Amino acid sequence: LIEIKESIYAENDRQAFEIHKRLSGKGVFVVNVLGGAGAGKTSTLIALIKGLSGIASWVIEGDIASDIDTEKLNSLGINAYQINTGGNCHLNAPMMEAILSKMPDIQNGILFIENIGNMVCPAEFVIGEHVKLVVCSVPEGSDKPYKYPTIFQKADAIVLNKIDLMPYIDFDEDFFLKGIRSLNPDARVFKICAKDKTGIGDLVDWMKRVNGK
Amino acid sequence: LIEIKESIYAENDRQAFEIHKRLSGKGVFVVNVLGGAGAGKTSTLIALIKGLSGIASWVIEGDIASDIDTEKLNSLGINAYQINTGGNCHLNAPMMEAILSKMPDIQNGILFIENIGNMVCPAEFVIGEHVKLVVCSVPEGSDKPYKYPTIFQKADAIVLNKIDLMPYIDFDEDFFLKGIRSLNPDARVFKICAKDKTGIGDLVDWMKRVNGK
Repeated sequence: LIEIKESIYAENDRQAFEIHKRLSGKGVFVVNVLGGAGAGKTSTLIALIKGLSGIASWVIEGDIASDIDTEKLNSLGINAYQINTGGNCHLNAPMMEAILSKMPDIQNGILFIENIGNMVCPAEFVIGEHVKLVVCSVPEGSDKPYKYPTIFQKADAIVLNKIDLMPYIDFDEDFFLKGIRSLNPDARVFKICAKDKTGIGDLVDWMKRVNGK
Repeated sequence: LIEIKESIYAENDRQAFEIHKRLSGKGVFVVNVLGGAGAGKTSTLIALIKGLSGIASWVIEGDIASDIDTEKLNSLGINAYQINTGGNCHLNAPMMEAILSKMPDIQNGILFIENIGNMVCPAEFVIGEHVKLVVCSVPEGSDKPYKYPTIFQKADAIVLNKIDLMPYIDFDEDFFLKGIRSLNPDARVFKICAKDKTGIGDLVDWMKRVNGK
């Protein structure tokens, strides 16, 4: 089984690298958006994309089932495309190829891919991204970096969402940040409330900066 | 790959059935506790086990890494045992056999198994349980039954935790319940706040009833 897993990873990596190269060549910067179910990945994307006005943006929504978020994004004028995985707990490069072949040709902008809500499996598969953006939230608790290290280890930036709920929840911010720093000294951390856009400016600035590189 | 997956499921099912039979024979009722990261599975167990005083209880804690919850439970006088899966996104029957072989002999009581925090993969593997208890929470949002149908479909009971946060969050309770009912007309639903024990009495009564069967 381990050998089969290795070969699945290798074949996925190869296809993901092709996607990465092809989209890079068209000036498309690819952001893999990861996080648990209900952390607020879609709300964060809505606030972030609004802040990026002037830069073309597209969203690929990954879900086991339903197209609730794609409908919401489209209704807000954001170009969103749905992948339903059936039962699969993460997106992979073949799913990306399949959806890209159905989308119009995209050039010069940022492609956000909202992965399946799950702090474990999606962290294991590259899908063509330039950066990984991890969204977590105050109600999930401050112990998450200790319990789910891989996703924090691989993050380029980490969003702590729903900071408006801090007064109602025992969230130990020092413990949370210490956990992140022990795994990943370089990741940027942004404290936001996507709902009312608190803190979104710094995230927008970071996104513009890494996109410009 | 599909054939290999089928055979993994079949071998897991066989081992899980052995565990189920063996523990049943000793009067041990087994509860598989499922839910996303940060839904409040451990807090729910603490409140529930306190309410079950007089009934022997044990907890097996499943985590990718760390033993934060096992230490917390032990410090409260609850007998808890840790499984660390390394990277694996769900518990399985071989992991259960391994931890049971290290635990003292248990008889006549309830064994709770807190699975990895993840609404997808743990729902696919039986581990010897009599019932599945799914814990979800208000801040995760009311759309979860639509996005992660399997876990709700397979639940015997569903706990909606953190109802104290209702005033601060857009949670559409009718939409949530409608989603559950369309998948699973029979599952009991309990609205609780584990932190202050609101609603825990009904969950304790249900647990006593199914354990007595």
